[in-house]
Amino acid sequence: MCGIVGVYSKEPVARDLFYGLNTLQHRGQESCGLAVSHGKDMHCHKGMGLVQEVFREDILKTLTKGNVGIGHVRYSTAGGSTEFNTQPLLGFSKGNRVAMAHNGNLINSQLLRTRLEEDGMMFQTTIDSEVILYLISRYYNGDMVEAVEKTMSYIKGAYSVVILMEDTLVAFRDPYGFRPLVMGKRGDDYIFASETGVIDVLGGEFVRDIEPGEIVIVKDGEMKTHITSQIAPMSSCIFEHIYFARTDAILDGVNTYEFRVKTGEILAKEHKVDADIVVPVPDSGWPGAIGFSKESGIEVKEGLVKNRYMGRTFIKPTQKEREIAVKLKLNPIAQVVKGKKVVLVDDSIVRGTTSKRLIQSIRAAGAKEVHMRITSPPVTHPCYFGIDTPRRKSLIAANSTVEEIREEIGADSLGFISIDGLREAAGKDYKFCKACFDGEYPLDPCVL
Amino acid sequence: MCGIVGVYSKEPVARDLFYGLNTLQHRGQESCGLAVSHGKDMHCHKGMGLVQEVFREDILKTLTKGNVGIGHVRYSTAGGSTEFNTQPLLGFSKGNRVAMAHNGNLINSQLLRTRLEEDGMMFQTTIDSEVILYLISRYYNGDMVEAVEKTMSYIKGAYSVVILMEDTLVAFRDPYGFRPLVMGKRGDDYIFASETGVIDVLGGEFVRDIEPGEIVIVKDGEMKTHITSQIAPMSSCIFEHIYFARTDAILDGVNTYEFRVKTGEILAKEHKVDADIVVPVPDSGWPGAIGFSKESGIEVKEGLVKNRYMGRTFIKPTQKEREIAVKLKLNPIAQVVKGKKVVLVDDSIVRGTTSKRLIQSIRAAGAKEVHMRITSPPVTHPCYFGIDTPRRKSLIAANSTVEEIREEIGADSLGFISIDGLREAAGKDYKFCKACFDGEYPLDPCVL
Amino acid sequence: MCGIVGVYSKEPVARDLFYGLNTLQHRGQESCGLAVSHGKDMHCHKGMGLVQEVFREDILKTLTKGNVGIGHVRYSTAGGSTEFNTQPLLGFSKGNRVAMAHNGNLINSQLLRTRLEEDGMMFQTTIDSEVILYLISRYYNGDMVEAVEKTMSYIKGAYSVVILMEDTLVAFRDPYGFRPLVMGKRGDDYIFASETGVIDVLGGEFVRDIEPGEIVIVKDGEMKTHITSQIAPMSSCIFEHIYFARTDAILDGVNTYEFRVKTGEILAKEHKVDADIVVPVPDSGWPGAIGFSKESGIEVKEGLVKNRYMGRTFIKPTQKEREIAVKLKLNPIAQVVKGKKVVLVDDSIVRGTTSKRLIQSIRAAGAKEVHMRITSPPVTHPCYFGIDTPRRKSLIAANSTVEEIREEIGADSLGFISIDGLREAAGKDYKFCKACFDGEYPLDPCVL
Amino acid sequence: MCGIVGVYSKEPVARDLFYGLNTLQHRGQESCGLAVSHGKDMHCHKGMGLVQEVFREDILKTLTKGNVGIGHVRYSTAGGSTEFNTQPLLGFSKGNRVAMAHNGNLINSQLLRTRLEEDGMMFQTTIDSEVILYLISRYYNGDMVEAVEKTMSYIKGAYSVVILMEDTLVAFRDPYGFRPLVMGKRGDDYIFASETGVIDVLGGEFVRDIEPGEIVIVKDGEMKTHITSQIAPMSSCIFEHIYFARTDAILDGVNTYEFRVKTGEILAKEHKVDADIVVPVPDSGWPGAIGFSKESGIEVKEGLVKNRYMGRTFIKPTQKEREIAVKLKLNPIAQVVKGKKVVLVDDSIVRGTTSKRLIQSIRAAGAKEVHMRITSPPVTHPCYFGIDTPRRKSLIAANSTVEEIREEIGADSLGFISIDGLREAAGKDYKFCKACFDGEYPLDPCVL
Repeated sequence: MCGIVGVYSKEPVARDLFYGLNTLQHRGQESCGLAVSHGKDMHCHKGMGLVQEVFREDILKTLTKGNVGIGHVRYSTAGGSTEFNTQPLLGFSKGNRVAMAHNGNLINSQLLRTRLEEDGMMFQTTIDSEVILYLISRYYNGDMVEAVEKTMSYIKGAYSVVILMEDTLVAFRDPYGFRPLVMGKRGDDYIFASETGVIDVLGGEFVRDIEPGEIVIVKDGEMKTHITSQIAPMSSCIFEHIYFARTDAILDGVNTYEFRVKTGEILAKEHKVDADIVVPVPDSGWPGAIGFSKESGIEVKEGLVKNRYMGRTFIKPTQKEREIAVKLKLNPIAQVVKGKKVVLVDDSIVRGTTSKRLIQSIRAAGAKEVHMRITSPPVTHPCYFGIDTPRRKSLIAANSTVEEIREEIGADSLGFISIDGLREAAGKDYKFCKACFDGEYPLDPCVL
Repeated sequence: MCGIVGVYSKEPVARDLFYGLNTLQHRGQESCGLAVSHGKDMHCHKGMGLVQEVFREDILKTLTKGNVGIGHVRYSTAGGSTEFNTQPLLGFSKGNRVAMAHNGNLINSQLLRTRLEEDGMMFQTTIDSEVILYLISRYYNGDMVEAVEKTMSYIKGAYSVVILMEDTLVAFRDPYGFRPLVMGKRGDDYIFASETGVIDVLGGEFVRDIEPGEIVIVKDGEMKTHITSQIAPMSSCIFEHIYFARTDAILDGVNTYEFRVKTGEILAKEHKVDADIVVPVPDSGWPGAIGFSKESGIEVKEGLVKNRYMGRTFIKPTQKEREIAVKLKLNPIAQVVKGKKVVLVDDSIVRGTTSKRLIQSIRAAGAKEVHMRITSPPVTHPCYFGIDTPRRKSLIAANSTVEEIREEIGADSLGFISIDGLREAAGKDYKFCKACFDGEYPLDPCVL
Repeated sequence: MCGIVGVYSKEPVARDLFYGLNTLQHRGQESCGLAVSHGKDMHCHKGMGLVQEVFREDILKTLTKGNVGIGHVRYSTAGGSTEFNTQPLLGFSKGNRVAMAHNGNLINSQLLRTRLEEDGMMFQTTIDSEVILYLISRYYNGDMVEAVEKTMSYIKGAYSVVILMEDTLVAFRDPYGFRPLVMGKRGDDYIFASETGVIDVLGGEFVRDIEPGEIVIVKDGEMKTHITSQIAPMSSCIFEHIYFARTDAILDGVNTYEFRVKTGEILAKEHKVDADIVVPVPDSGWPGAIGFSKESGIEVKEGLVKNRYMGRTFIKPTQKEREIAVKLKLNPIAQVVKGKKVVLVDDSIVRGTTSKRLIQSIRAAGAKEVHMRITSPPVTHPCYFGIDTPRRKSLIAANSTVEEIREEIGADSLGFISIDGLREAAGKDYKFCKACFDGEYPLDPCVL
Repeated sequence: MCGIVGVYSKEPVARDLFYGLNTLQHRGQESCGLAVSHGKDMHCHKGMGLVQEVFREDILKTLTKGNVGIGHVRYSTAGGSTEFNTQPLLGFSKGNRVAMAHNGNLINSQLLRTRLEEDGMMFQTTIDSEVILYLISRYYNGDMVEAVEKTMSYIKGAYSVVILMEDTLVAFRDPYGFRPLVMGKRGDDYIFASETGVIDVLGGEFVRDIEPGEIVIVKDGEMKTHITSQIAPMSSCIFEHIYFARTDAILDGVNTYEFRVKTGEILAKEHKVDADIVVPVPDSGWPGAIGFSKESGIEVKEGLVKNRYMGRTFIKPTQKEREIAVKLKLNPIAQVVKGKKVVLVDDSIVRGTTSKRLIQSIRAAGAKEVHMRITSPPVTHPCYFGIDTPRRKSLIAANSTVEEIREEIGADSLGFISIDGLREAAGKDYKFCKACFDGEYPLDPCVL
């Protein structure tokens, strides 16, 4: 779970990249970086923290040269959270500096890495993305399409990638289309990004999604495209629309906001309830709650206030502190929920612990009943393609029935949207990966 | 515009204060600090930045001693934004360390300061709050009530204050009750804070507001109260309820959430409109929009997506960048507003520049009409009691009619709630200062 | 043990102060600071660390305004080593900003502090110097001489002080003249400093020492002097010449380099020895060793190499590491000492532990005999006037005879210069405090 | 000009490396780093600044695992002074982490780099050392001797290298022996370092120099050595003994201290002078001055006091500041030089500017005559093997006769030691590179 951006212009692009990364900040808050190229010169700055922390004005001022560039935001993952693994990745290759930013996850990177090491290559990081950069470097002999296509014939998994070399910008997407990648234009400039919001913010026009298996190269002001011969079933990640992408995103033909409202409406049909108010779990719960309210006729109210300033890591050594932590993030508005039968609308249940504490605190604030409605089906299988779901043993839905989950989280009733409901909300043209709900992976994560 | 907190307990309170300050973070993001006392020892840590940045775990670990303490968050103001002016303010007074945190603004501090300096006092900061600390230090001779009462007889203006000396915690509020200050209990512990959310988060029970002119002292486990002889008309700041306080606050008898919903309802009655959707300006616009929707029957939709990560300071050197900046903070969801007659609900218009850019960007996203509805009356006069409104010449409503404002911001129609509407929403028992709407200051800011 | 500097000029003085503080760096490495004044404006920067660490070029660039200024370097003392206690101390007093830097130690500061607190004053630090600033502020009514003289009638102890207020520079020295303070001129500019080296480096001419009990004021380009009525026996600290001041200093009529060479010569007469080489303990041992060599005819050789980069604080958790630490700072040159009878010349023995380890390591490098010669008499009493000697129980010479010390440190012989020898080396006109050698304090540290 | 260290032990070595790097600090103050290995795990920390700044106690505490390790200090060079180029260099190679530290300079690195890039390798830095690491990685197939030997057959120039891979420590030196590398033992532990001082400080015994062309491997507690078939004339860098190494070093059979004293004696014979005092330029001038004094019978005196705290970079924007800068570093002791005929002993003249300003300031302090004596011959040619001498046009001796130099620097007389004198001082068994004096490079720096 990361975000990438690339801009090709006649003007310096560092500020465009900076604004683009800010717009993608919700996709990753651990680290960020950008690289801009100016002929043979390349300048790069990376660091741990939010975009605005890493790119203070004095840093941006040092990046004024470079009309082509790429950027990356990285999600906080459990293990290797170090400066070491920040992107863009860089290297010197055959007299050229190359930079690359990758969103997704390779499933055969370890195997490829071992082979490349046997062949004398040295790696600098522990992340799978480095394999892509080294393969491209190896196969590059003046023709970037050839180098990328050859690289794509070896790597397996989810990858949306932007590459910067001298004044050339390359963007490509894996044949399954797991992770999004869109293209926009602003006058003669080209913009590539994980989400359409970046194009909006930079004042560009959305052109289209990069196709699964497509390689796009912008050079000397011209855009060329190439579709690789690799064919695979389109497997766009529906969790982008469920909660990962920003509400204003349009990805692979799906309007995220409308999709979320529709999941609420369908949920209201699939799991009717007698209640007084619909309360969204902020922020992503709002459209689902509005849809639920519209379909059910039950009034929507803001019943939970979110602390906008809570960071990601939070140390909770004692039980008392753990209880405080929940209310610190989401405090019930007592005057709204007191004496009411509440429908709580959220986008997913992964481990169940947050839902449990939330329901407890709403009951403590005086709610008479709490009915939980979830705008995604139960998550029963881990994702190998870039969403940071835990192993099966921690997935509450992998080991419990809906009734058992309801009891565990202490809800009066619990309803998940069905996979069919999801398909209806997304529209029939949208082909998505639903492996996390049913275990049918488009690409076997174990055989390789 | 700041937030204060004080906790008296039998257990160490640094973490309580830390959670309390996090809960008050929306009241000030520039700097923060806390002081805890353990007999004669006092430990204090302050710094520029958010609570979670200033109080990293390793800092909190050094503050384990101290069962009584106070804290402060400070709002970013134009001028003296330096480490120098962070609170709590500290001093050694007659063998004791004293710490103080102040929310509000004195109007005669310069005069008092001059007199104290003539008398041989030395000041360390440029903020008005230091005068309060020095007066209390001067008048303290073992009886804190006497010292505070004497101090209150000299200082004029808005002040809600917590003071820490050895194991004693003091809280007091000016006779007009400009700024809020509430009291809670958690077992035998006492909690004082600018908002009730702090009491909720710390697991306490709300007891009551500190009365205007009241001095509360907690010492040796006992709470004593004293009402000063100074009498003044209650003048609670209604902007706390309009947008400053968090939605879950209950202050001076007003439920902030319900108040905001009601202002939306009243607004819908006072300024009817023919439209397709109601769109709140996030985040504080939600309850007003819900109220407007309920009364008018027009559906509420999320039409603007807010970037949750945008900091406060943002350099915008060029016109192009200034345009980007608006969309970076609030991007219209095109599929929601396209072709629609939109009612945009916001809490206030101060200079008008933000509203203007926002309406432009919604129109650019395809809206057919944009009708602006504001849940506060026009702000025509500056505040001298702690709200950071600009001078009159920058207040758009001080120099323009509603029609002129409408034209300036480019709305199809514009409606502000009336002062009577505000009174109706707050309830008849709530006496508030409305000087910023009509210039009738409860206390003359110029005579002194 | 600190260093102070003050410069009055027609040009900006921040860089002069910076160079001056660098020249005084040996007098204190814990923290430093400087303040410059420009009419009503005063700018100050302080911090923990070396002058070059605290005053990076970007900081210096912000201090370009101000033709008058003062500076301070602070020695690392055991207890209150915090940012809190850095100097110059600052305050607002009767409409003016005042800054002060103090070298020395008051013996009645606690008493004065208590009285001032009873009178309503608040203190900000725990250091004695703050009392001086507050008294001057209190007594200042337009006449600085009067304010300083009144202040001097209350404070007891060692103090050399520079004060900055608007465009006025004040320098004064206690009636005993414990700590040095010299005056220089550079064209029309005035320079005050703890040592003459500052005047040399800034390109000025040495004028004279500030007299004990003298107050000097520079204002409107004119220097005025005033001798207070307080009379006391001159008690210059001879440890300045023994090791504290830099070799190039000329203070109170004594040439530090010549003094040190002479102590070596006298020591060679007082404590003859049959040896092969004279080895100085670097760096301050060189002149004494040269003097010893000259008088005795024994060749001087560099037998210890000093690590120029070792910082001050050094954690030595294990015995093995403690042994490494000695050699890390001073490693014997084996080829010089092997098989030789070595005279080791050092300036003092305080606790004896360093001497012991040093002798061990020289023996381990092959020395046949090690004879220790010390250019100061045994230190038997603690200093209350600014030299950081330990309490009596840690002073090896307070509890042991010379023979016992010799045995403890493992030397083949040990000789200290006599007090008479010291007097001879300094010259008959130099009146010094010798309390640390015989306990006859010029000012009773206990009665007050 | 760098320093390297390697330690193989049964105990954790991070602290040994830390102390070793401190001991080598004079060889490079720009950046430093160390890597320790613990089976498959390797931990590395690097940074800009002094060893004590980069390795604070909290960092050292994180490096407790690892019984084998290497370290590096880097000299401040003109161009690429960035975090990027700090050593040890790291990589993942065939399942192993490898770290390397290099002292010296390759002359064919650019050529090799181009070839490796053509072959698909990616580089991460701009420094020559990376080529060595990548070649070893490429040729390593389980046999480290083979990999190093093959690498040595390609690389040309000066290199003393330590390598760390899992629990194996490798040390090797180029066939010319340009840069030093010594071996020591401490019990069963092995110590490799650029200078013998490291072995002394760590409590080990000096065993011997690593031979030119020798590869030493320590693994499973056993040391194995291998001499490569490459044969070259021994070309040890005599500047190590002239000024670069610390006074206590014994390298390639030469005692640095004794060598320096002897150069002073020979210089006194070669360039007699009638004078009153011999004054060393601190710190490295002391032994030469002592030798000169001994031979000439002229008394040695400390006539210049060095500021121990002056950092390396020092901004001198104006002429006035440039003059201050010289005195700030080295201030003449006026009472020593006044009215005297001074022999100033220094180790080298490169550009001549420092000597010129120094002589000016000694004359200004009252010296009657200043006679300069230099313990190295005139430097007429640049070094390509690791000493940071400037290009020929900046070398004063490359473009001027001795008499012209004398006039330029303003000395009354000037004498350099002869190359024969140098040979005599070093002893007949010592074969050294004297290319910087006569241009006869042992290895043609241009042909390759």
